[in-house]
Amino acid sequence: MSDRLPDVQKQNDGRNQPIQKVGIKEIKYPLLVKDRRKGHQKTVGSVNMYVNLPHHFKGTHMSRFVEILNETHTEEISIETLPHILREVKERLEAEESFIELVFPYFIEKKAPVSGAQSLLDYECRLIAQSNSRQFQLVVQVPLMTVCPCSKTISRYGAHNQRALAIVKVVFEKMVWIEDVIDVVEKSGSSSIYPLLKRQDEKYVTETSHNNPAFVEDVARNIAGGLRLIQEIQSFTIEVESWESIHNHMAYAFIES
Amino acid sequence: MSDRLPDVQKQNDGRNQPIQKVGIKEIKYPLLVKDRRKGHQKTVGSVNMYVNLPHHFKGTHMSRFVEILNETHTEEISIETLPHILREVKERLEAEESFIELVFPYFIEKKAPVSGAQSLLDYECRLIAQSNSRQFQLVVQVPLMTVCPCSKTISRYGAHNQRALAIVKVVFEKMVWIEDVIDVVEKSGSSSIYPLLKRQDEKYVTETSHNNPAFVEDVARNIAGGLRLIQEIQSFTIEVESWESIHNHMAYAFIES
Amino acid sequence: MSDRLPDVQKQNDGRNQPIQKVGIKEIKYPLLVKDRRKGHQKTVGSVNMYVNLPHHFKGTHMSRFVEILNETHTEEISIETLPHILREVKERLEAEESFIELVFPYFIEKKAPVSGAQSLLDYECRLIAQSNSRQFQLVVQVPLMTVCPCSKTISRYGAHNQRALAIVKVVFEKMVWIEDVIDVVEKSGSSSIYPLLKRQDEKYVTETSHNNPAFVEDVARNIAGGLRLIQEIQSFTIEVESWESIHNHMAYAFIES
Amino acid sequence: MSDRLPDVQKQNDGRNQPIQKVGIKEIKYPLLVKDRRKGHQKTVGSVNMYVNLPHHFKGTHMSRFVEILNETHTEEISIETLPHILREVKERLEAEESFIELVFPYFIEKKAPVSGAQSLLDYECRLIAQSNSRQFQLVVQVPLMTVCPCSKTISRYGAHNQRALAIVKVVFEKMVWIEDVIDVVEKSGSSSIYPLLKRQDEKYVTETSHNNPAFVEDVARNIAGGLRLIQEIQSFTIEVESWESIHNHMAYAFIES
Repeated sequence: MSDRLPDVQKQNDGRNQPIQKVGIKEIKYPLLVKDRRKGHQKTVGSVNMYVNLPHHFKGTHMSRFVEILNETHTEEISIETLPHILREVKERLEAEESFIELVFPYFIEKKAPVSGAQSLLDYECRLIAQSNSRQFQLVVQVPLMTVCPCSKTISRYGAHNQRALAIVKVVFEKMVWIEDVIDVVEKSGSSSIYPLLKRQDEKYVTETSHNNPAFVEDVARNIAGGLRLIQEIQSFTIEVESWESIHNHMAYAFIES
Repeated sequence: MSDRLPDVQKQNDGRNQPIQKVGIKEIKYPLLVKDRRKGHQKTVGSVNMYVNLPHHFKGTHMSRFVEILNETHTEEISIETLPHILREVKERLEAEESFIELVFPYFIEKKAPVSGAQSLLDYECRLIAQSNSRQFQLVVQVPLMTVCPCSKTISRYGAHNQRALAIVKVVFEKMVWIEDVIDVVEKSGSSSIYPLLKRQDEKYVTETSHNNPAFVEDVARNIAGGLRLIQEIQSFTIEVESWESIHNHMAYAFIES
Repeated sequence: MSDRLPDVQKQNDGRNQPIQKVGIKEIKYPLLVKDRRKGHQKTVGSVNMYVNLPHHFKGTHMSRFVEILNETHTEEISIETLPHILREVKERLEAEESFIELVFPYFIEKKAPVSGAQSLLDYECRLIAQSNSRQFQLVVQVPLMTVCPCSKTISRYGAHNQRALAIVKVVFEKMVWIEDVIDVVEKSGSSSIYPLLKRQDEKYVTETSHNNPAFVEDVARNIAGGLRLIQEIQSFTIEVESWESIHNHMAYAFIES
Repeated sequence: MSDRLPDVQKQNDGRNQPIQKVGIKEIKYPLLVKDRRKGHQKTVGSVNMYVNLPHHFKGTHMSRFVEILNETHTEEISIETLPHILREVKERLEAEESFIELVFPYFIEKKAPVSGAQSLLDYECRLIAQSNSRQFQLVVQVPLMTVCPCSKTISRYGAHNQRALAIVKVVFEKMVWIEDVIDVVEKSGSSSIYPLLKRQDEKYVTETSHNNPAFVEDVARNIAGGLRLIQEIQSFTIEVESWESIHNHMAYAFIES
């Protein structure tokens, strides 16, 4: 039946305007992503899939993106499997280039620093790839704690501190583990944060963070230094935002490699 | 070591003010939820856990919530298992009442109406329970399509239509399936929506929805009628919001049983 | 011309289901709200307006809400003027009851505690009223700072602290000033927060907050005590959420009067 | 007093890492912006202000951003006044480059197409400038309506349609009016949208939009064509997202000039 329905998208377009990206955005899907410790982990993602559209076509066939997503979401997603999906998208959409963006929470088991009590911490990740490039972009959001060096220095006791978020984008061709990026960031603030802390852990985190005051500027610089030691990383951007505990706005630092 | 650290939370409080709920909010965790077709499904949730706090205690021990969550998140969550978790929370937090709220996307396989093409649709769900009640609250958000009856009647052709969202809360003691609530809602609008529609499906959905125009008022009333036929539902509220395609605001209807 | 177009909304409805609220939601509009210090202030709000719908009508006439909003948004909004708007809505929508909800940022000039440096702090407010009641609901969100009493007690130095948010709903018939609710909350945490702090102010806030450690439980109880001293307040609810600097989740306390 | 407190930010930093942007983010402030029809309009914005930080300084003095914001927010913000603010920021923060981003709703009076009934429509705008460039970036978000050409062609009657959002960024040195960008976009979809439509207007919008079906691809191309006619625009990007009424995800198109 569908064969006899007219294909409006394939009609000729006379505006002479190619479109760099056209597709579907923010479709939620269960995903299976590669996990260094456990092989893979199940999570839930938001998926964007695009192709380019040559100037002479009126539109693209959006349902095909969902077909491909449905066929592939139970396979493990990694930098080994993404090129296959991108090729599939490119071919079935009859395009010259295809793009995919996956946003998902990734869980890592954290051990409390003294008691060793275990719990899971979520890190929002974004993985971006396109068919005509061997580079991948990985964006990892890592929460951490910052103790203000100025506040600590000028005050007789105490120091204001707060939760901060580092948003790190790394570009690579050869595999960079999410865990390695997180590792660099968690060593770059005043302290790492944990879902579960017993009293002796809370004492440890309080004292350790007080001994390591860091502005958002410091955190960004420390991360830059750490990322430079990972050879596979070809370029990076770093954003650090802190929900200042003494203000109603954020402090912000940005470094581009 | 923690034994020797003072327990500040257990200190006496003299303000004579009990606290109805105290706990942790918006902790992300992987969840295993009961699924009618497949037994269970893995998803990712946001969890709130609270207890009441008698007036004579200064604070509660928040880390225990995370301990319990960590111990139980790999067990299937359902109305059979929630009472155990609530009892555990109540006992380990030494409280008189405990509360839990779980928010998670729940995926159901949808078949396109003509081609039968399959894909997964996400429905945001919220499950709420407390230790001193045998009632559960289930909130399901169901997207659907509304074609405006006024626009259809007054226009020579066409009719404005849009995506709408029904937010349905049902209260019950005996199991009500998420799938049954969704079923009622998806029959109450102009048409159900689907992640994947081939051309013949799109024709079907367009024509069917045009034949079933419905205001948000109609959708809310239709849902109310459908929910009344599910005996296990003891009470409900219905909210229907539509992203009006001709406006920049929403149309809204609310019914309370 | 519109006279000759059929009025679909006025058609009879046979489902015997009244609708408690039907209307428009989240329409953005500039608003003029009453301000204790300056008489009034201009802000931008999100407006919800509803009426009830008797069981025998199919729908309501949503455009009339926008007409009324457009006529009245340049008048100062206060508890003196809202009853007029509600009556207008009720009459022009031919309803038995009408409802209005206004959400808007409200700005107050804050003076830094030592330097006296001035800046504006925004507080999100929600004002709710309905035609058949003389009671108003005012919800004010007040950011503040909490220093953890447990962390302070068990650690040799420092104490984790963070930004917290108190969400206070007060119900009244006789005018309660937004400023008075904010005042109560800002005295209930470890410290008030400020957009602008010079170095000597930062020292003051750090030390003061360190001297006033408070759990979310303490903040909620302190607010409850303060609200009880405002005679015009007939009832209240208090929620306090803190973005724990050592965790990726929130601590939460809830009191209902 | 502050003179005697140590200036931690001015300390030397040995990591040899300059920071491209450091400052404050998401501070809410009332703003006065230039308005073509009325001279200026009061609105409420979210403000980001940054400077670069040379590698040898440890940190920047964030409070000075707020001081400057407080001094200038009652002046009309336009491309004439922004360079003054940027120079002020650069000098008082002792930086080589300064940046500002303002996000605010901008209201325009819309007339319904047949009745002429008036109401205000909000458009989210973002204005970006930096001291070392004479170029400004203006991002305008314009809601509009799209009727699916495929659905219209293959169906015997009706066509699915929905609200869409065009996010247009234009780069210019000489003034481009927000109103002119909006004008281009509102002519590029199936129909403009309106806060207030009487019955005869709704008939008009329904029929007109049905006569002008447009994919997101078409809307993006039409906008590109329109922007090319505005000489002051040096470059642009166009994103069009539509909340597909038959799906739970968005259709998306992106064009870069």
